[in-house]
Amino acid sequence: MQFHHHGYVSGDPTVLPAEGVGLERPVDLPDETDVLIVGSGPAGMLLAAQMSQFPEVTTRIIEKREGRLVLGQADGIQPRSVETFQAFGFAGRITAEAYNIGWMNFWGPDPENRANIIRTSRTEDYGLKISEFPHLIVNQARVLDYFAEAAQHGPGRITPDYGVEFLGLTVHDDGEYPVEVRVRYTAGERAGEERTIRAKYVAGCDGARSGVREAIGRTHVGAMAAHAWGVMDVLVNTDFPDWRTKCAINAEAGNILHIPREGGYLSRVYVDLGEVAEGDNRQVRHTPLEAVIAKANEILHPYTLEVKEVAWHSVYEVGHRVTDGFDDAFDADRHPRVFLTGDACHTHSAKAGQGMNVSMQDGFNLGWKLGHVLTGRAPDSLLSTYAAERRPVAQQLIDFDREWSSLMARKPEEISDPQDLATYYLATAEFPSGFMTQYPPSMIIAGDAHQDLAVGFPLGKRFKSAEVTRVADGNAVHLGHHAKADGRWRVYAFADADAARLAAWAEAATPVFARFTPAEGDSDAVFDVKAIYQQRFDEFEVTDAPALFLPKTGPYDLTDWEKVYAAGTTIWCTMDIFAEREISRDGAVVVVRPDQYVAAILPLDAVDELDAFLEGAVLPAS
Amino acid sequence: MQFHHHGYVSGDPTVLPAEGVGLERPVDLPDETDVLIVGSGPAGMLLAAQMSQFPEVTTRIIEKREGRLVLGQADGIQPRSVETFQAFGFAGRITAEAYNIGWMNFWGPDPENRANIIRTSRTEDYGLKISEFPHLIVNQARVLDYFAEAAQHGPGRITPDYGVEFLGLTVHDDGEYPVEVRVRYTAGERAGEERTIRAKYVAGCDGARSGVREAIGRTHVGAMAAHAWGVMDVLVNTDFPDWRTKCAINAEAGNILHIPREGGYLSRVYVDLGEVAEGDNRQVRHTPLEAVIAKANEILHPYTLEVKEVAWHSVYEVGHRVTDGFDDAFDADRHPRVFLTGDACHTHSAKAGQGMNVSMQDGFNLGWKLGHVLTGRAPDSLLSTYAAERRPVAQQLIDFDREWSSLMARKPEEISDPQDLATYYLATAEFPSGFMTQYPPSMIIAGDAHQDLAVGFPLGKRFKSAEVTRVADGNAVHLGHHAKADGRWRVYAFADADAARLAAWAEAATPVFARFTPAEGDSDAVFDVKAIYQQRFDEFEVTDAPALFLPKTGPYDLTDWEKVYAAGTTIWCTMDIFAEREISRDGAVVVVRPDQYVAAILPLDAVDELDAFLEGAVLPAS
Repeated sequence: MQFHHHGYVSGDPTVLPAEGVGLERPVDLPDETDVLIVGSGPAGMLLAAQMSQFPEVTTRIIEKREGRLVLGQADGIQPRSVETFQAFGFAGRITAEAYNIGWMNFWGPDPENRANIIRTSRTEDYGLKISEFPHLIVNQARVLDYFAEAAQHGPGRITPDYGVEFLGLTVHDDGEYPVEVRVRYTAGERAGEERTIRAKYVAGCDGARSGVREAIGRTHVGAMAAHAWGVMDVLVNTDFPDWRTKCAINAEAGNILHIPREGGYLSRVYVDLGEVAEGDNRQVRHTPLEAVIAKANEILHPYTLEVKEVAWHSVYEVGHRVTDGFDDAFDADRHPRVFLTGDACHTHSAKAGQGMNVSMQDGFNLGWKLGHVLTGRAPDSLLSTYAAERRPVAQQLIDFDREWSSLMARKPEEISDPQDLATYYLATAEFPSGFMTQYPPSMIIAGDAHQDLAVGFPLGKRFKSAEVTRVADGNAVHLGHHAKADGRWRVYAFADADAARLAAWAEAATPVFARFTPAEGDSDAVFDVKAIYQQRFDEFEVTDAPALFLPKTGPYDLTDWEKVYAAGTTIWCTMDIFAEREISRDGAVVVVRPDQYVAAILPLDAVDELDAFLEGAVLPAS
Repeated sequence: MQFHHHGYVSGDPTVLPAEGVGLERPVDLPDETDVLIVGSGPAGMLLAAQMSQFPEVTTRIIEKREGRLVLGQADGIQPRSVETFQAFGFAGRITAEAYNIGWMNFWGPDPENRANIIRTSRTEDYGLKISEFPHLIVNQARVLDYFAEAAQHGPGRITPDYGVEFLGLTVHDDGEYPVEVRVRYTAGERAGEERTIRAKYVAGCDGARSGVREAIGRTHVGAMAAHAWGVMDVLVNTDFPDWRTKCAINAEAGNILHIPREGGYLSRVYVDLGEVAEGDNRQVRHTPLEAVIAKANEILHPYTLEVKEVAWHSVYEVGHRVTDGFDDAFDADRHPRVFLTGDACHTHSAKAGQGMNVSMQDGFNLGWKLGHVLTGRAPDSLLSTYAAERRPVAQQLIDFDREWSSLMARKPEEISDPQDLATYYLATAEFPSGFMTQYPPSMIIAGDAHQDLAVGFPLGKRFKSAEVTRVADGNAVHLGHHAKADGRWRVYAFADADAARLAAWAEAATPVFARFTPAEGDSDAVFDVKAIYQQRFDEFEVTDAPALFLPKTGPYDLTDWEKVYAAGTTIWCTMDIFAEREISRDGAVVVVRPDQYVAAILPLDAVDELDAFLEGAVLPAS
């Protein structure tokens, strides 16, 4: 964490000084706003937290509820989401209060008495092997609290406008604020009053029954499945020994997906309510709680659940639907003004624990693009990449979830190999961890001509961090964890063996970065450029690094000491990033987007290619 | 972190529900209080945070300043302090914002040009080998902020009474509140007004010029040393390559101890101002800042410092003094009513980075004792152990600091072996890490007859945590990190190979613990008893553990699943605590105090000895 560079900070360093529109942010919703976010779920709140890093941009987030969410529905947190929380500054804190999934156990009928269940296998969870971040379970309400804090503590000082309901919108062809949005106050002194707000852009983060989706004429494609599940968050007494372990139970009496929750006592139980009869007409949704509890006891036999408190419960039918478009650009040459995220554009079962995670990545993908376009850092065309990149991800999600749901809902007699759920679970781990997303070449993902220079950083996938040594202090740090969600591009220059080519690259690249960076601010305001040497940190002096990697920052022009790293191992850092990520010993330049996806891989002598890539993705500073 | 057991918690689970005197805590200082803490430094604020866990006890903390500390003086945080922060719930957060000391470098004159300095050695810092917790540098003001939050979020809802100055006190021989304290408001509407407060106990946490010390007639013993140092927290530009590394510089021109600070830019520089002439009469304290900066530049030659901002600076003479007693019990048979902590009873140089740490351990030692005596959990005699235990620690501190300060202040020609500072630094690592404290046998430290059953848990030293697997969920956790600063005793029952003796112990010990535990609350309200099996977690069922280790908790009588652990290694936990801490395979019982010190080690068949030990330290529940 870097601070004090604008002078001594006495208080909490995670509360950044207010800037721009954050300095005197009006309490009331203004008539005009650059960005209007509709809905304060995971996608909307991440987006608000991201936009708070662009204090030149006015952003408001409306939510029809009167205040913060009290009971959340989603609770599964992929390692990729924890990695994202790291960028927003709260991975450590949320991990401390969450349930950590170490294992997934599978239960089936006891061959000797098929009315009883027995444990058939234990599978270690996928988190450890795939990421340095864990796989967690925590209440969605807490995730939103943390994003709310990040939005509030960012320079833009964004807080949700609670008690304001979206009614409809019209996109006009011209004007500075072409989107006209009709809203109504649902709470407070102005309850019932309708207003019109004008925005440059609108993000529809308003869930499965999205009013924004309806207003722009997009439709959900797909069908409700013929399977229903009861779900409950319960405090119980039980003799079931896996009450604190995630498990899938396929009993003669039916199926349970069991998810322990944070805090050591609560668990979420998904109870299979079976095939829904044709013409049921949503009657299954009225299944009483008592019936769900009774069914759970039947499935768990010979174990029992004595339910002491039900924090939340629901019955739903599994649907698998993707919206026919993620923005309002029905024609390819139309500039999008309205975007859909999260459940507004993809809905599916809850049991793979994916929904909140994919929704947050929607918000992360969209946020920096809005910020860059609205601050003149990128061309308008950048915004078209949102739908192009995120719609295929939603389709993958639906496909994965459909397969996982079907596997989970099988009857024991349909299961030939009791291990196959476990096998599927591990084999597909990269997807539910959130790391399988790979964006195709575009204006912000370069071609793969030089992929072989850094095999461990696949183009279009998220930058997989590794440990390095910070030369200035000899500490082991995760290279990727320095990358905060601050809207900046990251450029990692991996040195050649004697760093001669690195020095030449730094000299040639300096004017290139300068051309895209406003002269009046810090020289690293747009590109955060770091060097990684092959040596040990104590085999050279940090002060010998090229000036590009020791930029002056803030009003005192203080040296930033945290851009020079070393790969040689020490007692603190036992990982060599060159070996770990298969980086060429001739060096390589890895360009990473503000949302942490690898955008380009280039040789150290290809500054012209770097220039050409940036020319397509970034606007020169005026 | 355990929560939800009193029903679903929607918000921040670290904010505990208010209880007892925390429910309607008066804003104004009351006329009577059980505990009055004077001073809101590290010892006082830790004490407040600890007392907030005893909501049956009224505690107030007065501070003559108008509000929170803005600029702190201390900044060195030992691993033992981070371990303590873990117990108070903020180790992760403070570590994230702190500077982590990975290395200490040593500089001396360049043999080829003695006017220049060169690096003579690099020494890895001692933290890694001694503890799982790091060695940090962070502003004292932030440490106080975190303790203030812990005090505020505890059930007692304690907040400091700022703007109230201690004037004097009288200890009467009788009455329920025998200590009469005179105070004056220094700020707010009542500024200037004097009042009398009556307390059962007073903690003097009011620093080196302690008014409480003076009021009880204790005196500082020792002398000012004849050496002066200038200290400054500065933002600079420099070509000195170790600006971000802790270093000791012994140059021809003088000595510097250089401590990088949190945030990546700021450093603290201690500049040796040389011997103080006899009869100087504190004139050295008026050394101008410019002279200190000039001296620093001389010492750093050929490198230079260009100072951009001075956040704080001071000049001081090194003193080494210990108070002649730590409480007001001048006679051995007198019950102490007033206690001294921190700088009020020990002062020394700042350069070993010890002061704040030892002060906090004073507060940690005293807090639970006050809590237990005031809630009737322990006999009054417990309070006499505070001075008996802490005074020798203060003397050790002074001795260490004197030796370290002298080594630091040597002239280069006095240094025969350039490595010897580095050697001393590493050889003595256990002391400055905070782990050398070992309390002698007393009513709360048993004799060492059974030490051989658990060699790695020396009696009287703090319980050194190790990783184990929590059986209920298969997660790797640090056994000691579950021990929060909640005033409870911990009892770790390490099982024999087949757990038969463990089962017998549990049955015999259950009524013993029950005798000391109020019938109306949770059965683990006084003793948090845990079992550690030798097997892997998946070689037995958690539900097979004796009932003592699966107690019912809260209004729903919910099973607490977090008291049964396993030592067998897994992919998540690669450490076997029996091997790591040399625990007998016949089992052992380790009793640990609320301040984390090992109090007793007993065989599994010695329940009578356990009973006898508890009889001396704890009062039976009435």
